Amino acid sequence: MDSTTNVLIVSAHAADFVWRSGGAIAKYVKQGANVHLVILSYGARGESNDLWNIEGQTLENVKAQRKAELEAAAKCLGVTNIEIWDYQDYHMRLDEERMERLVYKIRAVQPHIIITHGPRDAFNPDHEAVSKFVFDASVLSTSNGVRLEGTKTAKQAKIFGFEPHQSEISDFKPDVILDISEVYEQKKAAMECFKAQKHLIQYYGYKAELRGNHARRCSGNNDYKQAEAFSRFFPYVGCEFV
Amino acid sequence: MDSTTNVLIVSAHAADFVWRSGGAIAKYVKQGANVHLVILSYGARGESNDLWNIEGQTLENVKAQRKAELEAAAKCLGVTNIEIWDYQDYHMRLDEERMERLVYKIRAVQPHIIITHGPRDAFNPDHEAVSKFVFDASVLSTSNGVRLEGTKTAKQAKIFGFEPHQSEISDFKPDVILDISEVYEQKKAAMECFKAQKHLIQYYGYKAELRGNHARRCSGNNDYKQAEAFSRFFPYVGCEFV
Amino acid sequence: MDSTTNVLIVSAHAADFVWRSGGAIAKYVKQGANVHLVILSYGARGESNDLWNIEGQTLENVKAQRKAELEAAAKCLGVTNIEIWDYQDYHMRLDEERMERLVYKIRAVQPHIIITHGPRDAFNPDHEAVSKFVFDASVLSTSNGVRLEGTKTAKQAKIFGFEPHQSEISDFKPDVILDISEVYEQKKAAMECFKAQKHLIQYYGYKAELRGNHARRCSGNNDYKQAEAFSRFFPYVGCEFV
Amino acid sequence: MDSTTNVLIVSAHAADFVWRSGGAIAKYVKQGANVHLVILSYGARGESNDLWNIEGQTLENVKAQRKAELEAAAKCLGVTNIEIWDYQDYHMRLDEERMERLVYKIRAVQPHIIITHGPRDAFNPDHEAVSKFVFDASVLSTSNGVRLEGTKTAKQAKIFGFEPHQSEISDFKPDVILDISEVYEQKKAAMECFKAQKHLIQYYGYKAELRGNHARRCSGNNDYKQAEAFSRFFPYVGCEFV
Amino acid sequence: MDSTTNVLIVSAHAADFVWRSGGAIAKYVKQGANVHLVILSYGARGESNDLWNIEGQTLENVKAQRKAELEAAAKCLGVTNIEIWDYQDYHMRLDEERMERLVYKIRAVQPHIIITHGPRDAFNPDHEAVSKFVFDASVLSTSNGVRLEGTKTAKQAKIFGFEPHQSEISDFKPDVILDISEVYEQKKAAMECFKAQKHLIQYYGYKAELRGNHARRCSGNNDYKQAEAFSRFFPYVGCEFV
Amino acid sequence: MDSTTNVLIVSAHAADFVWRSGGAIAKYVKQGANVHLVILSYGARGESNDLWNIEGQTLENVKAQRKAELEAAAKCLGVTNIEIWDYQDYHMRLDEERMERLVYKIRAVQPHIIITHGPRDAFNPDHEAVSKFVFDASVLSTSNGVRLEGTKTAKQAKIFGFEPHQSEISDFKPDVILDISEVYEQKKAAMECFKAQKHLIQYYGYKAELRGNHARRCSGNNDYKQAEAFSRFFPYVGCEFV
Repeated sequence: MDSTTNVLIVSAHAADFVWRSGGAIAKYVKQGANVHLVILSYGARGESNDLWNIEGQTLENVKAQRKAELEAAAKCLGVTNIEIWDYQDYHMRLDEERMERLVYKIRAVQPHIIITHGPRDAFNPDHEAVSKFVFDASVLSTSNGVRLEGTKTAKQAKIFGFEPHQSEISDFKPDVILDISEVYEQKKAAMECFKAQKHLIQYYGYKAELRGNHARRCSGNNDYKQAEAFSRFFPYVGCEFV
Repeated sequence: MDSTTNVLIVSAHAADFVWRSGGAIAKYVKQGANVHLVILSYGARGESNDLWNIEGQTLENVKAQRKAELEAAAKCLGVTNIEIWDYQDYHMRLDEERMERLVYKIRAVQPHIIITHGPRDAFNPDHEAVSKFVFDASVLSTSNGVRLEGTKTAKQAKIFGFEPHQSEISDFKPDVILDISEVYEQKKAAMECFKAQKHLIQYYGYKAELRGNHARRCSGNNDYKQAEAFSRFFPYVGCEFV
Repeated sequence: MDSTTNVLIVSAHAADFVWRSGGAIAKYVKQGANVHLVILSYGARGESNDLWNIEGQTLENVKAQRKAELEAAAKCLGVTNIEIWDYQDYHMRLDEERMERLVYKIRAVQPHIIITHGPRDAFNPDHEAVSKFVFDASVLSTSNGVRLEGTKTAKQAKIFGFEPHQSEISDFKPDVILDISEVYEQKKAAMECFKAQKHLIQYYGYKAELRGNHARRCSGNNDYKQAEAFSRFFPYVGCEFV
Repeated sequence: MDSTTNVLIVSAHAADFVWRSGGAIAKYVKQGANVHLVILSYGARGESNDLWNIEGQTLENVKAQRKAELEAAAKCLGVTNIEIWDYQDYHMRLDEERMERLVYKIRAVQPHIIITHGPRDAFNPDHEAVSKFVFDASVLSTSNGVRLEGTKTAKQAKIFGFEPHQSEISDFKPDVILDISEVYEQKKAAMECFKAQKHLIQYYGYKAELRGNHARRCSGNNDYKQAEAFSRFFPYVGCEFV
Repeated sequence: MDSTTNVLIVSAHAADFVWRSGGAIAKYVKQGANVHLVILSYGARGESNDLWNIEGQTLENVKAQRKAELEAAAKCLGVTNIEIWDYQDYHMRLDEERMERLVYKIRAVQPHIIITHGPRDAFNPDHEAVSKFVFDASVLSTSNGVRLEGTKTAKQAKIFGFEPHQSEISDFKPDVILDISEVYEQKKAAMECFKAQKHLIQYYGYKAELRGNHARRCSGNNDYKQAEAFSRFFPYVGCEFV
Repeated sequence: MDSTTNVLIVSAHAADFVWRSGGAIAKYVKQGANVHLVILSYGARGESNDLWNIEGQTLENVKAQRKAELEAAAKCLGVTNIEIWDYQDYHMRLDEERMERLVYKIRAVQPHIIITHGPRDAFNPDHEAVSKFVFDASVLSTSNGVRLEGTKTAKQAKIFGFEPHQSEISDFKPDVILDISEVYEQKKAAMECFKAQKHLIQYYGYKAELRGNHARRCSGNNDYKQAEAFSRFFPYVGCEFV
């Protein structure tokens, strides 16, 4: 985790990257890694209920609001490389053209680590679609028969899946519990940028504490305070037990 | 993985530790880790078919033969701390007294890493019994209400499960694929100590190559040649994605 | 849920019933149900780490302390029918004699509802043993060939499993999310009786809030504040969709 | 289950709603609930084998026949609100336009309960497609960012999945076993409207008896005679154990 | 399936072999196979509810009744090699001595096929215990280090598991669906020997019809009328696809 | 397995049928079965990495090379009925028109056995898409409401799934282990036609040996040398235990 590490986060909606990997992002930025953030949609249809409760609301305005919030949150985490692809959400349609766009992006970033939605997410069909979309794009990006002008084949990145909102009914198994104690204040600040979603700020605050408890129990290390959990898309490969 | 790392391997029978973790052991020894090996039985009843095919064979002789072989194999891997508990196998009876003995051992070794049988092993009831036995002992060893004269509560070790002989019908999922290229010759030498089991020497040789292929595919690192696979008993906890 | 409803809770250790079903218990007591609590052990060996950190601690003293705490907690919840069977924990040995004792108890109580540990609980072998023990006893209690002097065969109770400490790595699936908003203060008071376990008080406080969030999301009912989750041992049977 | 309860059934083909939920429907109608039935196709291609065995058969005629049968069956069950969307089956193509149509329907009905195909159905790809289609539509219907002229956001309905034809090879787990004894004669009459499918009439008659046996065994209530089984799409949420 | 085929059935209680494999047994007997039946208990405690409802009932009488019934049933199926080991049921205690007895039996029979309880059976702890007991004995019987006077090591038998009473809540997956049409009348006659269990006679009659439907659907062969389902303990091995 | 047996293999890319079922194919051809091979793509984009490493490579040339290799390999196995549909791979788009084409093919071949990709294949989205595509086409082919000029409804074929490259992380369970010892030299020759993929030739050589070991262990038959593993799409149905 230093300036030679490239990280790509792909977030289905405006705020997913904050609730589920804000701590991880802040850590990697802090250590000097090259962190790239792709946000596929503003979540205007599916994740902006509170904004639509305002009389006379318009799509443009919802998007503008979400944009301001997510940029503020990204700033708290220290991320500066952000692309917003502004796709429609709820349902998100992810065709071959969009697939190619993501393959381009992966080949441009050459990520060692990709962080995105895990394969199952009860109550959120977009998250499941994005999970498969990113995984498939990652596979295509490593194949040099997939010829894209001006790109260089990527090496297989490690892929980590967000913890979904309702873990157990989404078959989520935590493979990685990441200590985020040292950057937790940044994550908190980032979460608070989404003013219209107070209940989620509290919710993900509690989650971080519970995962901190698990981190201590599984490791015997009592320095861990807050943590985030992720699934792996395939096994750890390496030179020692970790 | 250095001289401050304590490793405990618990093997149900005489040769399990070689087929399934010989490479891992050799690596840890090579890096100066403190490696402790507990062998619960000689496998005289369940894993010495070839020896029993010899006319006039006796239990004493089978045990002596297995002892010589396993000590030779351990030597190839560089392990010197070996205990053979000489329990009867097929079925292995693991009562509270034996549990207490293992808790003592864990507290004496204070392992950071425990390597033993994974929870499922088709065709081998002893392996399944030992897996639960070791896990439970590890939990008890961390509880300071389990009062054992002269012992100090252990910190929760990371526990890794061997790949069983028939992986898929034993529900084995590889969580960790460990590169053993640099010590593979040692593992081969260790395997060859079990002269009466030629078919297994070849079998685990092929396995190491297949796992090497997976290691390359999952990581994009073509330096990996041979590998061993393990399951995790609980999630990785740490400060960065690995 | 009224004075014709019999409920039996079986708790492996002194505090399990509070962390995991304190809200459910308080509700049933409040509505006038007949609530019976069996506590199999004081958890002196496995769940009293903090007490054993005190210099010169003795087993008698640990038990006395746990007894005082659990009785205070039960009082907060309004339960008066309590039996403490004082078995050794870590490992809990559950033989045929103890099985018979529980069959007697079930036949005496004639429960409509049994609440106990679910089948899997990572890091806690006692909880898993108790889960099977209670289930088997419940089956035996309904069979009138299991002849026990002075008892009357029970009808098959509905059985609900506690949410374990680390849900996802224990394969826990929430089948029932029970609103405990109206009795949450009682549960909090009960939890606070276990003074030496501050971290768990906070932990289960957060859990109640998260489960409250899930309750709202799954039902669309925003009155739910705190909740507890349980698994079912077998399907719901009834006259309408619930 | 009274006149304030809104129920929506979505059936992939002409007869699915009868075989798999005829009893449930009859019960809800009988108690005065508002029951709405959407039939997505006549099953002309995939579930009308017997009709196509007739020399000179035409698609129009098959549809007419299926229409007559399903209307007769619905009448037996007492349902009067029926819509037939007449999509092609085998394969059923469920695009965004059709999704929007179902969101409209859900918002119009404002169902408390939705009954449709469960997520897995071996040998029937349409049933699996419809299951995801209905679930996603139900999620979209609750999101007020999904703006549809003249509609009002729905509250999250409880969703129940039909038992598929071959339960075990479709990973079906019965979460709810519904007693249908009091309306079983109606279900039988409804099944008999599908004259060309005698083998299914017998088959689902036997199923009802087996599920009745399970209902008695799981509850200890011997009044249950016939029953239907369903899966849940997410946990039960409520104020007491059921 | 001829006079060179040895079959061993191990039944936990008096009637299990009839409900769950009566058709299979009758077929093998009819074709001249050597069929051996071991019945571990009379099921006096767990599966004789109706008998115990008779005033003044005694254990001896229950056993005598069960013995008469099972012998009559075996006769209907044509089995003459029957051993009743008369163990206590509910709970069945299966220690090392009993294990050794079964290893002896397996080595005496040298079965090509073993039929017994599958690994999971909701509501019946004995069935689960017997499943593991038989599997472990089969493994031990093939190991020539397990020295038993006067025995000859067995070859690994194929092992098939009974369909449990409540298939789906017991995780039963049918791997083999066996056509029993030609011997179904014999099975029916055998079932009718258990006069006190009318409800089960009807239940397993319906099951046979449903499994017959599945046999037709999966194979396209309409000659199949009634069938029985079994799980496999390990993969089919052979020279062609079957 | 004789001249009345029709077999259809559907391979996503040029070489899949060789690595994963070359032995099965050679056996069926040798016994005189009618073996038909459909190859959906040349794998030019996803499975021709080595060819693309050559300076100035073109798509036409890659396809020509793959065509020559696969035809040579098919010749080694003795297959003469080959169709190459030349679809684009990585991603393979399988629409209703292509589905209809496969239904035509199945109805023309009237296969008793279909061999294709199993449902899960980590790292290869095309394989998963083809698995569902073939299964759905097989279901449609049996339905006589799916009217296709000049075709005759097929009987339900048995369907077997290839072992994927990384079995365990693809949830592969071997249901069938097929002895290929007598044709192994043919399979080896066929594999060697894919000159640019030396690592796979070695890899699938080792796999065949490991599966041979499993075949011996599961059956006790020591004549088995090399083997291939397959999953089943639905249960075995037949007249005896196999």
